[in-house]
Amino acid sequence: MIITSNSNDIIKTVISLKQKKNRDNLSLFIVEGYKQVSEIPQNWKTKFIVSTEKYKEINKNGFIVSERLFDKISCTKTPQGILAVVEKKKYDIEKVLSDNNGIFVVCDNVQDPGNVGTIIRTAESYSCKGIFLSKTCADVYGDKVVRSSMGAVFNIPVFQECDVVSLIDLFKEKQIKICALSLDGDKVLSKFKIKNNIALIVGNEADGISKDVLNVVDNKIKIEMFGKTQSLNAAVACSLAIYEFSKSLNYDK
Amino acid sequence: MIITSNSNDIIKTVISLKQKKNRDNLSLFIVEGYKQVSEIPQNWKTKFIVSTEKYKEINKNGFIVSERLFDKISCTKTPQGILAVVEKKKYDIEKVLSDNNGIFVVCDNVQDPGNVGTIIRTAESYSCKGIFLSKTCADVYGDKVVRSSMGAVFNIPVFQECDVVSLIDLFKEKQIKICALSLDGDKVLSKFKIKNNIALIVGNEADGISKDVLNVVDNKIKIEMFGKTQSLNAAVACSLAIYEFSKSLNYDK
Repeated sequence: MIITSNSNDIIKTVISLKQKKNRDNLSLFIVEGYKQVSEIPQNWKTKFIVSTEKYKEINKNGFIVSERLFDKISCTKTPQGILAVVEKKKYDIEKVLSDNNGIFVVCDNVQDPGNVGTIIRTAESYSCKGIFLSKTCADVYGDKVVRSSMGAVFNIPVFQECDVVSLIDLFKEKQIKICALSLDGDKVLSKFKIKNNIALIVGNEADGISKDVLNVVDNKIKIEMFGKTQSLNAAVACSLAIYEFSKSLNYDK
Repeated sequence: MIITSNSNDIIKTVISLKQKKNRDNLSLFIVEGYKQVSEIPQNWKTKFIVSTEKYKEINKNGFIVSERLFDKISCTKTPQGILAVVEKKKYDIEKVLSDNNGIFVVCDNVQDPGNVGTIIRTAESYSCKGIFLSKTCADVYGDKVVRSSMGAVFNIPVFQECDVVSLIDLFKEKQIKICALSLDGDKVLSKFKIKNNIALIVGNEADGISKDVLNVVDNKIKIEMFGKTQSLNAAVACSLAIYEFSKSLNYDK
């Protein structure tokens, strides 16, 4: 049976998941596109798949909908015709922090979903140990974050709605050094070496890291620049720091 | 007089500039937002400014429109109420290539406007000498590219609609080495040093650099990664390479 009506309960659920409050309540989110759906790891639970007839061979136990209806429920401009509804995952912060050799990435009010997704993508690429998002960051389970992470969201622990100042206390308890990227940092990224672990904080696209956070970090690092542009894109700045720290950890000792 | 109708000729011009063909024909483009408009350098010619009454003090010679009309003509979701229509600029490629100490960035089919803007932003931040976009790249004068470049587009020469293979011939004539970022490159970015100038090529978000281009480059460079993610975001990859090359040029000699 091909579903054509958006009053169908399954379709209603999918549509409701476009809103964060419903993703939070149901603890579910949407993964869209053929490549993204087919690369969901086994240790994540797919509740059901919704697709057009084009994908009926790989969607034998899910729901088939008309192309017209799929276009309506899709989060993308050019829908491929397949999406999965997946259960969110809870990670154990103590376990994640117990790994004493690596990079923890903290986003303090990074609001652009593309930036958050790109930071997750880079962080996973360099085997960072976890991502911590402040309350005001874009939702990791929003469609744009999931899409721009290119599947990385499945392979690195992400903690949401963190209070960054409390988180820093926790890092300090665990002897993890805290570094903030700041335009007026007193240390320069390319000269800065790390030994075993580090928490890297990146701030808001327009305003950087909040003052109460900057006040309690161990190091403020700037990325040297030589042009007229005042700052780098937040995801680029964070990626450069992850790359440099990863080199320190992997090659310099 | 406050303009309220979108049949007004000025408003029609602004609306028409949302399409590339009209930007090409009129050789004009739109810069939107207070910060962006106020930072347009003197050596770029602003044809006129359109704003709501809020900005009438700084828009004494331009056109004032109703908020409702501005919302209609705006390219953004949360319009600030000010935009400028600016003349495009033509650069002299021979002059740009004659500078023999620096990085030239070539985008081969980079389609996402945010990526193109971010690459321009990073390139200007590291004083790259010029950006070269293939025919299939996002239009540098499109609103998203201009916006995500954060003004960098005004401070670095950008060449559009380049044939990348012919461009490589030109680089070779000028003794500029050509490096392509490629997932199966045989050299590793962090170990790769440059001496005086280099052309850096970055490819399409999904497919990388086209084969006919890869066949004629001097070096294929991969960026070492340690996670499960298959690739980095195109703008991030390009930014990492610009950062490393810039370090080579500025510190290593």
